Amino acid sequence: MNTPADSSASSSGLPRLLPTIHGPADVKALPAAQLGQLAQEIREEIIAVTAKNGGHVGPNLGVVELTLAMHRVFSTPEDQFVFDVAHQGYVHKLLTGRGGAFFQGLRQSGGASGFLYRAESAHDSYGAGHAGTALSAALGMATARDLRGSQEHVVALCGDAAFTCGITLEALNNVVSSTKRLIVILNDNEWSIARNVGALSKYLNRLSTNSTYNKVHHDLEKFFTGLPGGQDMHRMWMKWKRETKDFIVESSLFEKFGLRYLGPIDGHNLEELVKNLEFAKHSDTPVILHVLTKKGKGLDAAVAHPEKFHGASPYDPATGESIKAPGAASAPAWQDVMGKALVRFAQADARIVGITGAMPSGTGLSHLAAECPKQFFDVGIAEEHAVLFAAGLATKGIRPVVAIYSTFLQRGYDPIIHDVALQNLPVTFCMDRAGLSPNDGPTHHGLFDLAYLRCVPNATIMQPKDEDELVDMLHTSLQLPGPGFIRYPRGPAAGVPVKARPAVLPLGQAEVLRQGSNIMIWALGSMIPDALALAARLEAEENLSVGVVNARFVKPLDRTLLLSHAACIPLLVTLEDHVLSGGFGSAVLEALQEADCPAAVERLGWPDKFVEHGSSQEILRAAYGLSADDLYRRVLARWRNRHTAPVETGV
Amino acid sequence: MNTPADSSASSSGLPRLLPTIHGPADVKALPAAQLGQLAQEIREEIIAVTAKNGGHVGPNLGVVELTLAMHRVFSTPEDQFVFDVAHQGYVHKLLTGRGGAFFQGLRQSGGASGFLYRAESAHDSYGAGHAGTALSAALGMATARDLRGSQEHVVALCGDAAFTCGITLEALNNVVSSTKRLIVILNDNEWSIARNVGALSKYLNRLSTNSTYNKVHHDLEKFFTGLPGGQDMHRMWMKWKRETKDFIVESSLFEKFGLRYLGPIDGHNLEELVKNLEFAKHSDTPVILHVLTKKGKGLDAAVAHPEKFHGASPYDPATGESIKAPGAASAPAWQDVMGKALVRFAQADARIVGITGAMPSGTGLSHLAAECPKQFFDVGIAEEHAVLFAAGLATKGIRPVVAIYSTFLQRGYDPIIHDVALQNLPVTFCMDRAGLSPNDGPTHHGLFDLAYLRCVPNATIMQPKDEDELVDMLHTSLQLPGPGFIRYPRGPAAGVPVKARPAVLPLGQAEVLRQGSNIMIWALGSMIPDALALAARLEAEENLSVGVVNARFVKPLDRTLLLSHAACIPLLVTLEDHVLSGGFGSAVLEALQEADCPAAVERLGWPDKFVEHGSSQEILRAAYGLSADDLYRRVLARWRNRHTAPVETGV
Repeated sequence: MNTPADSSASSSGLPRLLPTIHGPADVKALPAAQLGQLAQEIREEIIAVTAKNGGHVGPNLGVVELTLAMHRVFSTPEDQFVFDVAHQGYVHKLLTGRGGAFFQGLRQSGGASGFLYRAESAHDSYGAGHAGTALSAALGMATARDLRGSQEHVVALCGDAAFTCGITLEALNNVVSSTKRLIVILNDNEWSIARNVGALSKYLNRLSTNSTYNKVHHDLEKFFTGLPGGQDMHRMWMKWKRETKDFIVESSLFEKFGLRYLGPIDGHNLEELVKNLEFAKHSDTPVILHVLTKKGKGLDAAVAHPEKFHGASPYDPATGESIKAPGAASAPAWQDVMGKALVRFAQADARIVGITGAMPSGTGLSHLAAECPKQFFDVGIAEEHAVLFAAGLATKGIRPVVAIYSTFLQRGYDPIIHDVALQNLPVTFCMDRAGLSPNDGPTHHGLFDLAYLRCVPNATIMQPKDEDELVDMLHTSLQLPGPGFIRYPRGPAAGVPVKARPAVLPLGQAEVLRQGSNIMIWALGSMIPDALALAARLEAEENLSVGVVNARFVKPLDRTLLLSHAACIPLLVTLEDHVLSGGFGSAVLEALQEADCPAAVERLGWPDKFVEHGSSQEILRAAYGLSADDLYRRVLARWRNRHTAPVETGV
Repeated sequence: MNTPADSSASSSGLPRLLPTIHGPADVKALPAAQLGQLAQEIREEIIAVTAKNGGHVGPNLGVVELTLAMHRVFSTPEDQFVFDVAHQGYVHKLLTGRGGAFFQGLRQSGGASGFLYRAESAHDSYGAGHAGTALSAALGMATARDLRGSQEHVVALCGDAAFTCGITLEALNNVVSSTKRLIVILNDNEWSIARNVGALSKYLNRLSTNSTYNKVHHDLEKFFTGLPGGQDMHRMWMKWKRETKDFIVESSLFEKFGLRYLGPIDGHNLEELVKNLEFAKHSDTPVILHVLTKKGKGLDAAVAHPEKFHGASPYDPATGESIKAPGAASAPAWQDVMGKALVRFAQADARIVGITGAMPSGTGLSHLAAECPKQFFDVGIAEEHAVLFAAGLATKGIRPVVAIYSTFLQRGYDPIIHDVALQNLPVTFCMDRAGLSPNDGPTHHGLFDLAYLRCVPNATIMQPKDEDELVDMLHTSLQLPGPGFIRYPRGPAAGVPVKARPAVLPLGQAEVLRQGSNIMIWALGSMIPDALALAARLEAEENLSVGVVNARFVKPLDRTLLLSHAACIPLLVTLEDHVLSGGFGSAVLEALQEADCPAAVERLGWPDKFVEHGSSQEILRAAYGLSADDLYRRVLARWRNRHTAPVETGV
């Protein structure tokens, strides 16, 4: 199954077709009989590259035929495809001139992004990384087309899980009032990241298996395939349209939203896909094609373990076993520490529940789902509802823990303010992936949470230095009278043991890890090791006395300790895995200003730019001026500017 | 119609009942025959109080019978009502011990809030002010009840417009997987704030007028009313349940989400309402009651002008004419300046369009709707879709202007980052109600936007000092290559003429309004008059030379001017109608720190608290330490602390 990506022959022994595909025109020019071989080669390429680099294996293996059919029927970049989440865009990349070494560098510095980007290709009409945006964006594009009177097609490709997301449903409500021409492909694989939840999922399942639909569809299918082409074909389409309207559409949910429903369609049957897309192309009302696909098709391990192979780390394609990078940390991932600690707390206290938005494994709540299923809620890709549901629970004495990645929590911002914080309800937020998420890139970095949460009254905001402190913080947050936010990064924790009984941390109290009299580095959570290394180097190379503080709390900040440092230490440095605008260092500046304290401060963090994807933390930090050397130089320059400038001038 | 609120006799001449209602038990104890009189008195009281104080007239007049019926059937606070938006809670307040002087002080300092608050009454199980949250919160409450095994009822009251909001739809998808007992009342008046939009609205209309539904309902109605009470009644309910399941529910949209549908129900027929609520109370599946109400019922002007009387300023109840406070400013409202300017721009450039989330009048886009209807889009209470729809439009050369109140834009935060800013799309955001919205209170103050937007790369953020500058900023933003955000407050603009041809403002350039050598006040937009007054007073009373800068841009900040001031002026003051955490003053601190500039700064703005509702800006500013005297004292204290401390010590 796993063919070297640069082999010149396909697994079938025929000359490889994929290297001859330089753009959609080549896809269209290929004889239909060769499409199966191309599909096979695409699967082999995706497996070979993701086995090495990691990536969204399952979603892409599921849409090989569908993407081929889209490029047979439509012409990008004149026509526009909008891929929801855009983690299923690998096939599209391979068909639009982004194969070869560029694709083989998938998710690495200089290689293809794991998602779609307008900046990466003219064929990417819209970028994404978060779910549920495609239908809205496509509706905007279709409306723009109508406003300017052009004729191109706009196609939105949405997974079934996108329909658990409020934005998709808001867009659905607006389709018919916005345009008469929009093609929506519902890629139904019964999975989002985890198995899909909610009433709509069940409804789609009924739709897929309902014999009436299938029978009508089958009859039409037979009828249709027996036709000659050209004009007759078109007339028959018209007839089909009338018939589907009468027999299929009226009874579907989508009809109530004014869309014509077509389906279910076998998402691995190229001929059927092409035919239906051709039909949709000529529809004079917005249309939704319900396409059934198999997530991970072509890789047995991915079919058997769809959640693991949704977004996989490097793996052995023969066995599906994950491959650990040599020398990789053996410490548990932050989310697993959180998930397992939550199980302990929930077992001891029935009031404690966990809520995820379709990410049980990614957030570690899968542990809770397994051990305390009645205290576990997966609400789908519905972050706003997740936060509000927690608020409702909290009004009645339940202690909800909402586990959402930092970047996805942006979706829940209004309920955080309007429902949780304003009513001061005790909801705990576990913000995973806070800080850089290197391979995923700008849609997944969690670099804004401190800025958007610091302004929220009643919020307590923490970041632990290691897994033991994470458990203490979770324990502490579960005692708070109001909202608690705990942020921690992607990847392995520090590798320290977790003590048997967690401690309640004193609110707003930082921890001095290393004393110093020249410079004091106030570092946040995951940046503590960097702060300690920086302090040691400044001491070793410059003979400076440099201390390190584990800030622990961004809000409330330990003002007492901060002001005591400001009073006697010439330079304070802040260090955070977050943008500088409005971040932790900004909180330090505010506290010093409020006390009218004229301390010198150097703030270290991410600049005011979107950070691209890259192979590692180190590479990206170096690219944005945050390598260990950069930090060293910047602190030293600030120190010298303030304290040895006259000497320097004299040299 | 307008009866003095303290009269002892109702308009019918009978002794007034309302003063005898001290809580829900009194509502239950009233003979059914007297409910009509009570409803009438409630209407009179609401009209009398809102005519004087302003408020949500229409929504409350529409739910008088419905709220009475809810309190006849359920028992708060044991049972819980969750009112969506909670602007229709006046009747509920009057029935739960909050009448008399407290209600007559509606929306004033010390009086009843215009919304519901957990802190205001045990009968307010959940507070709100933004739309679309009730179903989610109620689902959380119902689930909490199920987890702890108690039996109380949870009732969510949602307007039809709530179903244009993604959160409600996310919740709808989760109802059946969360609980078997939830009562949803769909209060359908075909209006949100403006006339409702979208496919669901049309669907509800079909449901309301469909003869099959009505006939089945009518037959059941007749059948039901002929029954004896008690056990028989219950058996019949069961029968009705089976029948509704077969004949009504199967074909409704809500059934696809797993809810039993009952309706349509006449929302002004108390007997019918009580009967249906009693039925719902015993339902063993989640149920939705489709109740038809008339917005503004009982006040002719409100029925005739539902948008104006959704949330009205003080008015003459006889004529419906607005009453201007004596001495009220004659300057146009900020939103009208924006709306009219947008009309000019849109008439000159067909690429320019306006998008509102169900607030055409509130945002001033009603002018665009009237003049350029094809360039106007109302997407419903769907802020996320509004932003995404704009992003989609912008990818294809359209120049969208999204007009959303500052506090509601919190809903669009993720699309702002993930879709607009990351792709650097030229979308203009007009953030009305930025700053304090005194009578509305904490759900409506726009005090967080700078903090949550400052961290967003590619964002340009502005605030004008007057309406002429607002038009320049709109014009400037429409030339930007990326996103532009313009914030301005509620209420009248400065009253200056708008010049015929707008100017493009130089990006990131502030404007010195008044020179000074001791203190320089960097003020933002609406705070400029306060800054000028403060400067004049400091000069007059303390002989200090105080300058004033109109900052114009929060991002990019005018660093050149700021640093030149920091170099030669001993004290810088920042002044903003925004919280201090992460706000404009914080941006100033960051810029000074980045330049290693040890300037003394005093930041003036709102503290880290939720600001309550109150009668006026002045009263609230005084309550939170921001009166003119407070500002004067704080600046002077900081000045003396830095510059005259030795002299003071010697006194």
